[in-house]
Amino acid sequence: MSPEFPPTERTRLRRRPQRGAYDEVTIFGILDAAVLAHVGYVADGQPLVTPTAFWREGRRLLWHGSAGSRALRAQAQGLLVCVTVSHVDGFVLGRSGFAHSLLYRSVMAFGRTQPLEDRAAKRRAMDAFIERLYPGRTAELRPVHDVELDMIAVISMEIEDASAKIRDGGVNEKEEDLEAPGWAGVIPVHTRLAAAQTDARIAPDTALPASLAPYAPGTRIDDALHAAAQARSPRGQRVPSG
Amino acid sequence: MSPEFPPTERTRLRRRPQRGAYDEVTIFGILDAAVLAHVGYVADGQPLVTPTAFWREGRRLLWHGSAGSRALRAQAQGLLVCVTVSHVDGFVLGRSGFAHSLLYRSVMAFGRTQPLEDRAAKRRAMDAFIERLYPGRTAELRPVHDVELDMIAVISMEIEDASAKIRDGGVNEKEEDLEAPGWAGVIPVHTRLAAAQTDARIAPDTALPASLAPYAPGTRIDDALHAAAQARSPRGQRVPSG
Repeated sequence: MSPEFPPTERTRLRRRPQRGAYDEVTIFGILDAAVLAHVGYVADGQPLVTPTAFWREGRRLLWHGSAGSRALRAQAQGLLVCVTVSHVDGFVLGRSGFAHSLLYRSVMAFGRTQPLEDRAAKRRAMDAFIERLYPGRTAELRPVHDVELDMIAVISMEIEDASAKIRDGGVNEKEEDLEAPGWAGVIPVHTRLAAAQTDARIAPDTALPASLAPYAPGTRIDDALHAAAQARSPRGQRVPSG
Repeated sequence: MSPEFPPTERTRLRRRPQRGAYDEVTIFGILDAAVLAHVGYVADGQPLVTPTAFWREGRRLLWHGSAGSRALRAQAQGLLVCVTVSHVDGFVLGRSGFAHSLLYRSVMAFGRTQPLEDRAAKRRAMDAFIERLYPGRTAELRPVHDVELDMIAVISMEIEDASAKIRDGGVNEKEEDLEAPGWAGVIPVHTRLAAAQTDARIAPDTALPASLAPYAPGTRIDDALHAAAQARSPRGQRVPSG
């Protein structure tokens, strides 16, 4: 059994509990297949939901942005947040309107934000983010400048409690509708990578870097991001992914 | 010029204002290319972000769920919400870590929730949702039962203010990094529909319904959803999409 986040008042699925999960393998799998999270916080009683690139280190979620941004300035004070990550996997069409649905995977994770305070921590974090996406990439790049680190804020959130919710499978109909005429079924949805487009100022025959190995054209973004997360490594220390 | 949502304290983009937009064409375009929104609200001081299928009618956003759900019971009381819709369009790899970025389109829309109170309004709304996704579909289905309407809550939110934020284009580098060796460029990301999978209890040669016309295999989900939104019509009254 994978370790669990014990269900709490704010994470326990009361309806359709069979769609819920609290274990790390399921929750981390959904998180690591994504690059974008929706970070919810409250400012002066107003809920705000900011789409944000994020990454995970153990039970911590991290994201960054301009040090001057309203969201990051607020979150640097230490706020309760809800970080939600979702994937749409398809459309479900039933024999009744009521049986129409979506296929999806989602995680809601709760905790309190904390800023990374010094340059060393921010540098390590930003390198880790690049490595999380593109294993080995930091060794291909110049080091981050101090002035660049000073321009950003990096926010960390220890997950206190979290739940996953998954709707998969096919059409769920009422028995009485099974004889209805017409079509029912599922239309899967896949998010895939297209071919890399080399920057116009670079010779078009320049080889793609080794750090893009997980991003072959046609790969599902979930698979690329998950593979990259598995291969992540400290700066310059490529860990074999076997 | 398309009508605008005048920028407000909570929607005005202060940094990189060139990435912001407040006009209906841009905002509705991003909303109508999506089926999933992230609805942020506050309960007892706790921010909550719920992934929710949604649709748009003019300047109103609507979503539904089980009448017993915590989120919908709270929102039925009339809450301030922030509804955020995001699309990831690609990865940007620069010549420095700092120039790495994502391509995306997003909308943050603010307003106050209001429940639809009676069955007639809920029936009309749920038919409109089905029609929004699958133009003509309600005529292919039995009418929604009253007991089904009683099981759900439908929430409506008039958009008070909203902004779009778009990061498109290519690599943005500092002049001093342009001579750095190695690769820089963009990896586009596309979400596409796969072939429809007919429910196992239906003859496999059953024709796909006319309402699935926008959902041909390989179509980008943005294009399918946008085309369906354009073709939407009242129950049984298919509007020619030309």
